[in-house]
Amino acid sequence: LLLYWAHVCLGVPDPHVRARLMQEEASRRTGGRVLLTESEQKLSERLHKLKEQEIAGPQFPPMMHFFEAQPFIQRSPIFSLLQRMPKGAALHVHDFSLVSVDWLVKNVTYRPYCYICFTKDQSVRFLFSAQQPLPRPQCSTWTLLETLRAKVGNVTDLDNSLIGNLTLFTADPGAAYPSQDMVWKKFEQTFIVTLGLVTYAPVFKEYFYRGLQELYMDNVMYLELRALLPKTYELDGSMHDRFWSLRTYQEVSRQFVADHPDFLGTRIIFTVHRGLNDSQVKEAVKMAISMQKTYPEVMAGFDLVGREDSGRSLWYFREALSLPVDLGITLPYFFHAGETDLQGTEVDGNLLDALLFNTSRIGHGFALPHHPVAKELSRKMGVAIEICPISNQVLKLVSDLRNHPAAVLMSEGHPLVISSDDPAVFGATGLSYDFYEVFVGIGGMSSNLGTLKELAINSLRYSSLSPQQKEEALALWQKKWDKFVVENSQ
Amino acid sequence: LLLYWAHVCLGVPDPHVRARLMQEEASRRTGGRVLLTESEQKLSERLHKLKEQEIAGPQFPPMMHFFEAQPFIQRSPIFSLLQRMPKGAALHVHDFSLVSVDWLVKNVTYRPYCYICFTKDQSVRFLFSAQQPLPRPQCSTWTLLETLRAKVGNVTDLDNSLIGNLTLFTADPGAAYPSQDMVWKKFEQTFIVTLGLVTYAPVFKEYFYRGLQELYMDNVMYLELRALLPKTYELDGSMHDRFWSLRTYQEVSRQFVADHPDFLGTRIIFTVHRGLNDSQVKEAVKMAISMQKTYPEVMAGFDLVGREDSGRSLWYFREALSLPVDLGITLPYFFHAGETDLQGTEVDGNLLDALLFNTSRIGHGFALPHHPVAKELSRKMGVAIEICPISNQVLKLVSDLRNHPAAVLMSEGHPLVISSDDPAVFGATGLSYDFYEVFVGIGGMSSNLGTLKELAINSLRYSSLSPQQKEEALALWQKKWDKFVVENSQ
Ligand SMILES: [Zn+2]
Ligand SMILES: [Zn+2]
Repeated sequence: LLLYWAHVCLGVPDPHVRARLMQEEASRRTGGRVLLTESEQKLSERLHKLKEQEIAGPQFPPMMHFFEAQPFIQRSPIFSLLQRMPKGAALHVHDFSLVSVDWLVKNVTYRPYCYICFTKDQSVRFLFSAQQPLPRPQCSTWTLLETLRAKVGNVTDLDNSLIGNLTLFTADPGAAYPSQDMVWKKFEQTFIVTLGLVTYAPVFKEYFYRGLQELYMDNVMYLELRALLPKTYELDGSMHDRFWSLRTYQEVSRQFVADHPDFLGTRIIFTVHRGLNDSQVKEAVKMAISMQKTYPEVMAGFDLVGREDSGRSLWYFREALSLPVDLGITLPYFFHAGETDLQGTEVDGNLLDALLFNTSRIGHGFALPHHPVAKELSRKMGVAIEICPISNQVLKLVSDLRNHPAAVLMSEGHPLVISSDDPAVFGATGLSYDFYEVFVGIGGMSSNLGTLKELAINSLRYSSLSPQQKEEALALWQKKWDKFVVENSQ
Repeated sequence: LLLYWAHVCLGVPDPHVRARLMQEEASRRTGGRVLLTESEQKLSERLHKLKEQEIAGPQFPPMMHFFEAQPFIQRSPIFSLLQRMPKGAALHVHDFSLVSVDWLVKNVTYRPYCYICFTKDQSVRFLFSAQQPLPRPQCSTWTLLETLRAKVGNVTDLDNSLIGNLTLFTADPGAAYPSQDMVWKKFEQTFIVTLGLVTYAPVFKEYFYRGLQELYMDNVMYLELRALLPKTYELDGSMHDRFWSLRTYQEVSRQFVADHPDFLGTRIIFTVHRGLNDSQVKEAVKMAISMQKTYPEVMAGFDLVGREDSGRSLWYFREALSLPVDLGITLPYFFHAGETDLQGTEVDGNLLDALLFNTSRIGHGFALPHHPVAKELSRKMGVAIEICPISNQVLKLVSDLRNHPAAVLMSEGHPLVISSDDPAVFGATGLSYDFYEVFVGIGGMSSNLGTLKELAINSLRYSSLSPQQKEEALALWQKKWDKFVVENSQ
């Protein structure tokens, strides 16, 4: 670069120097060094033209809130290409936001023994039970949904209001969620509502299978699931422990792979809430170690979840998080870190601390461009940032997605993968919506098919699979990719 | 950094390594290497505490649109400290948005011979004239404002509607300006309305004097004005040329300095609209060269203005902009560049081209963090970015100012100055509002008194003053600063 600088200072812009500098900048970007075949170049040009049209159009979805943008995205030919594109792995998705909530309401709540009660703050709770369940504090008497539906005039209204309790979707998100506090409150609320349905053991299994199906339908071939691994229950009130949940994920995933041999499977990142205290997190870390020992094939590592701004910092849990190393054990971490707009707070230190605790990837890393030292470390350590643009927008970290900080990371070619965080709660499915926002909004006219290709490859390269598994996964992906390119480059 | 990395990879976070890395990150920030005296440290701690309170409060102004945030900012004790702080120079302010619009309506339009006409798109035009002016296309018959005011029942309503034509301010900016297109349309409209008033030669002089006064009241000591240098007119319709405007700025500024010896004066950056064609820009560059020759003391350089996204790129004007070098003349450039959310467009190339044309500073540079090569060049060349956060927010490049890209530049200690662009149109005055947004919002808890000190010093260091003038300016500023610190560190 210094060489060019000498030319620059003369004040006469040499077109060759200019071209070289632009080339240098392009080559640093995510996908900037990917060599494209002739067919790939054709497809890339096609995408470029489509993007120009999309930018020139009257509505540019990445500027809009996802809830308002979604119908426009669905009509976009770029989106339809992205849906067909083999996207590799989903590396940052949470356990109970895997399946479109419609199914929960229109199928699961119609099953026998499904009880509902109503809380004072206009929410609901669900429970499957063979007999009338014991009353729960702060909630009305449990009513069988079957009975309730027979009583109410308009079942559709009831079902829609149930759906409203399970998702953040609303026609006017600006009015409904004026602040991060408000949107997080509702966000955590939806999980509590979901929990009653999905921790019913039979639903738990089926839910996960359907979750894999939604990803598979979106041309995702492998999943690393952030999972709370809650205890689950049966109709008679008997309980299964966390190990049952882990085992069940493994079994269901194996079944899914048996049914769909071009799907590679699932690995689990055990997560607990950062609202826990130090000794509770210690217990959780020990549990993770024990899970890893018993189920090394499916168990990938450990993470803390919940809103960073109102939770405890990684440094607060330093004793608990040092446990594995103290015991001479390697427990991979996959920390959420830097999911914040506030700079210089204790929580804003999570990024550096995640790296100091040798994290394998970083969830969100929204604040990373504000931390040049942490950014240098993560690049040198090959720690990929899991970018979830729709999540960041819906949770009000950023509005116009062209301003998403991933644009900075992409321009520098920082290790990145794209994921969807909690697609069902946001009304999304699979990874294609997030890929759309990244490709059209965050990348702007600078991103091309090389960007998409590198992002898809990254999702396997930065997964927790073994080197050998990665090689196999990449080979399978390449076959799918070549087919996709051939079919769409005309 | 590599040294630390070795420690990191062990996976056991060493608190000393952690502290060093945090220190390293802090030292890279704007102001991170500024040594503070004991009194300065006291004041810095006071500001830190105030900021913590502000962040914990129910309303955090940098998250809000400036029009909604302004009353909260006015009540902030940090803002009141920033108003008293000697801020150095205003380096990016436009000629006809210098003076609060109230004065234009409540004083200037009350003068004799002030005519008004009404356009079809609900705007107005003003003109001073000794006799009934000739009708203008697309505008109603000219009416004396005196006559109109005598006729209408409610003069306050009339005046408020005139104010509404001169500023972007509105109680509900989200509804009034749903898109960048809409807000820019109204923005350019306000200038056309203003023009009729301020190009009346007597008003032109007075307006500028008052503009300097507003800056002086806000503890700004020097101005570099982006000026269109329009022709001005007298009551009898006779005209003064652009040179008259330039001379007048010099004279008025000298008068102001005579009246306020601790004000340093004004230099002018001649600007033309980027909507012009190549030969018109060539003429303008020639005009700038001639102005520089005739008035070297006041003439600082040249720039192009107007919305980048809808205007022509710097590269389009490359012939015109190469003229000075071709003639063996140095004409300093102060280009607006990168005032865009769109990535990879032709206009997005303005940043690199501004640097290739050896620009002295860059106006906005909003897109700079998306251009790592341009960013490296601007750092190496010592080209400061003029950050105008309120302008970027009102013109809808970004909503929550904590996401302003200057946060990235600040975290890397990139050369920066803070300015206000078009304070009057945004309902602001001086630089304090923008300093508030930078200090509290963009910098978050990471910025301290050292940040403010470096930003103030930067404004003189990166000005177009001669080395000797800079030294004198810095000495004067230091005296003011020391006084400010003593008075506020208790
Ligand atoms: Zn997450
Ligand atoms: Zn400007």
